[in-house]
Amino acid sequence: MRPSGRAPDEMREITITPNFTRHAEGSVLIGFGDTRVLVTASVEERVPPFLRGKGEGWVTAEYGMLPRATHTRGQREAAKGKQSGRTQEIQRLIGRSLRAVTDLKLLGERQITLDCDVLQADGGTRTAAISGAWVALRLAVNKLMAEGAIATDPITTQVAAVSCGIYQGTPVLDLDYPEDSSADADANFVLLANGNIAEAQATAEGATYDEEGLLRLLRLARIGCARIFDAQLKAVG
Amino acid sequence: MRPSGRAPDEMREITITPNFTRHAEGSVLIGFGDTRVLVTASVEERVPPFLRGKGEGWVTAEYGMLPRATHTRGQREAAKGKQSGRTQEIQRLIGRSLRAVTDLKLLGERQITLDCDVLQADGGTRTAAISGAWVALRLAVNKLMAEGAIATDPITTQVAAVSCGIYQGTPVLDLDYPEDSSADADANFVLLANGNIAEAQATAEGATYDEEGLLRLLRLARIGCARIFDAQLKAVG
Amino acid sequence: MRPSGRAPDEMREITITPNFTRHAEGSVLIGFGDTRVLVTASVEERVPPFLRGKGEGWVTAEYGMLPRATHTRGQREAAKGKQSGRTQEIQRLIGRSLRAVTDLKLLGERQITLDCDVLQADGGTRTAAISGAWVALRLAVNKLMAEGAIATDPITTQVAAVSCGIYQGTPVLDLDYPEDSSADADANFVLLANGNIAEAQATAEGATYDEEGLLRLLRLARIGCARIFDAQLKAVG
Amino acid sequence: MRPSGRAPDEMREITITPNFTRHAEGSVLIGFGDTRVLVTASVEERVPPFLRGKGEGWVTAEYGMLPRATHTRGQREAAKGKQSGRTQEIQRLIGRSLRAVTDLKLLGERQITLDCDVLQADGGTRTAAISGAWVALRLAVNKLMAEGAIATDPITTQVAAVSCGIYQGTPVLDLDYPEDSSADADANFVLLANGNIAEAQATAEGATYDEEGLLRLLRLARIGCARIFDAQLKAVG
Amino acid sequence: MRPSGRAPDEMREITITPNFTRHAEGSVLIGFGDTRVLVTASVEERVPPFLRGKGEGWVTAEYGMLPRATHTRGQREAAKGKQSGRTQEIQRLIGRSLRAVTDLKLLGERQITLDCDVLQADGGTRTAAISGAWVALRLAVNKLMAEGAIATDPITTQVAAVSCGIYQGTPVLDLDYPEDSSADADANFVLLANGNIAEAQATAEGATYDEEGLLRLLRLARIGCARIFDAQLKAVG
Amino acid sequence: MRPSGRAPDEMREITITPNFTRHAEGSVLIGFGDTRVLVTASVEERVPPFLRGKGEGWVTAEYGMLPRATHTRGQREAAKGKQSGRTQEIQRLIGRSLRAVTDLKLLGERQITLDCDVLQADGGTRTAAISGAWVALRLAVNKLMAEGAIATDPITTQVAAVSCGIYQGTPVLDLDYPEDSSADADANFVLLANGNIAEAQATAEGATYDEEGLLRLLRLARIGCARIFDAQLKAVG
Repeated sequence: MRPSGRAPDEMREITITPNFTRHAEGSVLIGFGDTRVLVTASVEERVPPFLRGKGEGWVTAEYGMLPRATHTRGQREAAKGKQSGRTQEIQRLIGRSLRAVTDLKLLGERQITLDCDVLQADGGTRTAAISGAWVALRLAVNKLMAEGAIATDPITTQVAAVSCGIYQGTPVLDLDYPEDSSADADANFVLLANGNIAEAQATAEGATYDEEGLLRLLRLARIGCARIFDAQLKAVG
Repeated sequence: MRPSGRAPDEMREITITPNFTRHAEGSVLIGFGDTRVLVTASVEERVPPFLRGKGEGWVTAEYGMLPRATHTRGQREAAKGKQSGRTQEIQRLIGRSLRAVTDLKLLGERQITLDCDVLQADGGTRTAAISGAWVALRLAVNKLMAEGAIATDPITTQVAAVSCGIYQGTPVLDLDYPEDSSADADANFVLLANGNIAEAQATAEGATYDEEGLLRLLRLARIGCARIFDAQLKAVG
Repeated sequence: MRPSGRAPDEMREITITPNFTRHAEGSVLIGFGDTRVLVTASVEERVPPFLRGKGEGWVTAEYGMLPRATHTRGQREAAKGKQSGRTQEIQRLIGRSLRAVTDLKLLGERQITLDCDVLQADGGTRTAAISGAWVALRLAVNKLMAEGAIATDPITTQVAAVSCGIYQGTPVLDLDYPEDSSADADANFVLLANGNIAEAQATAEGATYDEEGLLRLLRLARIGCARIFDAQLKAVG
Repeated sequence: MRPSGRAPDEMREITITPNFTRHAEGSVLIGFGDTRVLVTASVEERVPPFLRGKGEGWVTAEYGMLPRATHTRGQREAAKGKQSGRTQEIQRLIGRSLRAVTDLKLLGERQITLDCDVLQADGGTRTAAISGAWVALRLAVNKLMAEGAIATDPITTQVAAVSCGIYQGTPVLDLDYPEDSSADADANFVLLANGNIAEAQATAEGATYDEEGLLRLLRLARIGCARIFDAQLKAVG
Repeated sequence: MRPSGRAPDEMREITITPNFTRHAEGSVLIGFGDTRVLVTASVEERVPPFLRGKGEGWVTAEYGMLPRATHTRGQREAAKGKQSGRTQEIQRLIGRSLRAVTDLKLLGERQITLDCDVLQADGGTRTAAISGAWVALRLAVNKLMAEGAIATDPITTQVAAVSCGIYQGTPVLDLDYPEDSSADADANFVLLANGNIAEAQATAEGATYDEEGLLRLLRLARIGCARIFDAQLKAVG
Repeated sequence: MRPSGRAPDEMREITITPNFTRHAEGSVLIGFGDTRVLVTASVEERVPPFLRGKGEGWVTAEYGMLPRATHTRGQREAAKGKQSGRTQEIQRLIGRSLRAVTDLKLLGERQITLDCDVLQADGGTRTAAISGAWVALRLAVNKLMAEGAIATDPITTQVAAVSCGIYQGTPVLDLDYPEDSSADADANFVLLANGNIAEAQATAEGATYDEEGLLRLLRLARIGCARIFDAQLKAVG
């Protein structure tokens, strides 16, 4: 029995509020249950040094968690003077995931930065961030296309992410914090709308798992991502 | 004529959503027009080293701005590895302002940290932060009193803050970004509900000002803070 | 009764030694009683990136305190690896104050940096720094004009600063350390020779204050700054 | 055809030199082809703060790469003043992998740190580090058991890691640098001697992959890890 | 011919002003010609962790240079966020030199920190710092002895330092900046009043030197240190 | 009697393995007894800003010690976020020593960085690093000359370094860790093959020394460096 009473293959409620803030070219507040992430997409007409003059764009991400997004207050990374290994790992994952569905040549020599800031955390912040980032990116690219800055759509398909895990021996979908903190294994899958995998990460916490376990987690992820793909489409109209 | 069409002594709409997030002992989303600041109050049962064993508590604040809260994206302070002088100046001001209405002995040997994070900026973020922080502090102290952790209310009165400035020769209340970026003088007043001043800061930007100018700004601030005190009371019920 | 026996509106002795060091274009050792600040003005023929090619100059300041300028030794900021919020707040204030009396277009595309280093502290280090910085700036600009690098004097008037506070219920001028550490309110005023205000900052420490209190502090500041303006003129001959 | 002429399921030569340095409780130089990683295991009779007094130990890892381990010189992380996101991600992975085969209660209240320093890089540095770290840990624990500090062996089984990827459409085992830098997908598997999975990470680089692709990579990883398990056993005698 | 017209074995004027600042237990402004270093000795009743409970004290030093102590302005180390290698090398040298004449057991479990801040630089700042630090230390220890905190004098003898170098083929004493910046070899000697050597550092800059050159530099250093020892004694009365 | 049983003027075994790693233009593993330092020479076709456009090259060095190179594990400098004063002092010394034998004009506008990483420490790591760096530099320059990038050999002679010290009253050559940690004086000499001195550093630890002591240490250093010069020549063939 899951602490929330959900069925093993049941996602939490997905809420997506597009245009949550005004200044960013794309912006969204995404919720997976009580987890809430504000994602903005910022377009800048310059690229990182390694891409200059190559006629290609770049998509990158930054991730942060407000100090009291969590049950107990965590130290502010800006005050500590450095981002944790966890933060850096997550923002690298988000960037890779969005680049997996972007044709950087079609994007042109510009950079889109996806800022993912967790306002409230209850497990699955990185997967909500990736899923919301696609919406923010979609909105920003729509704007660039409406302005005529981009002729051909550089976004090749949808991308979404969800966590799964083995909780008290049972594979379950979309872990909330009570599950996440005591799961035996914890996986994050980043899937494309065409069924392909952009990223699979499955980590043994209390107990290792076997090939069958890995496949069962992947199947749950497919169920969850189908739900997210629907919600994304609804959000971008 | 103000860019927004407001009268010189007209505040923007004040919106206060208490309990905006779940985990913090107190939490509020405050808006002054398009400026939106999320404030959480976190209670911790320990005090900074310089207060240990003195039977007194502490109230402190941290301030941050999401990278795309502004018109153009700013660099994330956690990524830069340090907080700007502006950030530090603001968080010191917020902390002092809230301590001005807190009896630290009655609070007891615990610390309350007010995290003020700007989700969207349109001028006046520090004054919205102070005004919202009072609500978050009030909610957190209410909770401590309901739990019996504190016997006598340590909050002595309300505190609120508002910006004023001299815009094209005219003293105006509650500057928005277009006004703030071209005002001749820019002031922030932190006032108590009893009329007293906790902090006055008036800075010449384009042109210096005289004593009469300072007093006219202070009078505008009294008008604005009266409005905020009402909104605060409504928010905490 | 003040600890020093001074009358409420009595400044400490002001000592200004111009050309205290040799290499800087302008240099001064300023004393307000036992507070001693060494200020140098360094001219560099370049401006910060945001001003390049605009035909304007810049005036900026840095502030530091030697580790044993104070009663007990403080940690060296260079060893800690960062400047405190207090340091950054002060150096921003000094820079703004001096820019308030400088026509940056007349200065031309060059930067003057005012380094204010406290050799000995007894209250009022930031106001002594501002008052001394005007002398160092004046000397450096004199040198530029004598060399023909600047045709028209970019310094529009004198600027000086002094602290005031409410000590044991009485408004007093130019707080020394024993007063500063126990004052109910603490204010710093930056005034121009023409009577205008460049910056007013009044902070409640133990008790808040009212409008009348603010005005009485401002009047004391006018008395103190008149004394400083005289001493500045004498120092620059 | 692979650049090295290897068959798709062919590992590079595995070389393990135990006791490569003298001071560490366990030490090994491991090579996967031209990749060379020096791993030391250091035993300290203290645990991190979150474990104090719980009667449990800890296994952690740090990772570094000498500046000229690579084709072109990289900046020294100690000189830059921070570890990259990649470094932190890798050292977290190594630590988790080794903890997956360690009974921390049996280890007792002590910490073993695995320092993995890449002397020469040619792809697969993190998997060589994990595979070598098991040997260093085994040697250090053997020493603790020989000294009587630990009664029951806390190491539950062997752990090894290997990279696989899809290179020019073909799944291949143990990528070297030329393959790694142009592979469509890049995976790292951390496997236990009993066949279970401690960690699976599969990242699309140029093209995403499907479930069948993921499984084929996992099967290659099993072939590679079998070879590594043999080499580990030979190394520890 | 030396730029200053001095004879090869001629020191610049040595000026020592004891008690230059008020708060420190010992304080001195020392000048070697135009080089001016303010040294304070701060006594703290605690020792670094590695000495706790051993009944021994510690003498340590920190060194800094004001940004415009030099011909062109250097960046402030506190603003850069780190001390240069040169700064660290110098402060380690000063600390070792003073410990060479201090019996740390007789000092008792307390620490004396010598802060050496260069107000104006014209070559030889580290040697002036060492020479002045002895005076500041002497004054601070005198104070401790007068207060009865220390029974037996822990200072065993005088220590002084001077630079020498090979300038245009000739060994010269006490290099000023024009000599220092073009010398072929540059040496610093730290000598005791009894003739012994605490530290010898001789570095080839343009041309290497031979054993005879080293000895000639050492002989010049003896001449210079004799002058400094006299000045130190005069300063401490 | 030395702990190792060596005669006072006896070096430890010198082992030099050229081409220890593949990617660097020059690479060597050097051992002085149990001390082992990996040195790589990296050629980059650019120079530091202060040399741009001057037609001159630069030789610089960086130094690091693996955390468990020593008897007890030290903290990793990359994790601490800064290099110690000791590290910076050593890398500055290595750079100066190699520049003493390089004609920077003949090198041409390129930089050679000598990375010296201590794999195992038993005293004398900086002197082994300098001695090995010459071999790595020689190999890298040979490669540049073979490729025709440099016409005339910029290396003017050999440079080597060795430590000496006064151990229990007796001057001894090439201190190992047990000697180094209890010597009364500790010296490092950097000598050229022609007998000249590039750097002499002699530090009193427990007891100061006299001129005769300094000369005896220098004579031991000549004996040691002769041995190193031979080993260097053998290594570069």
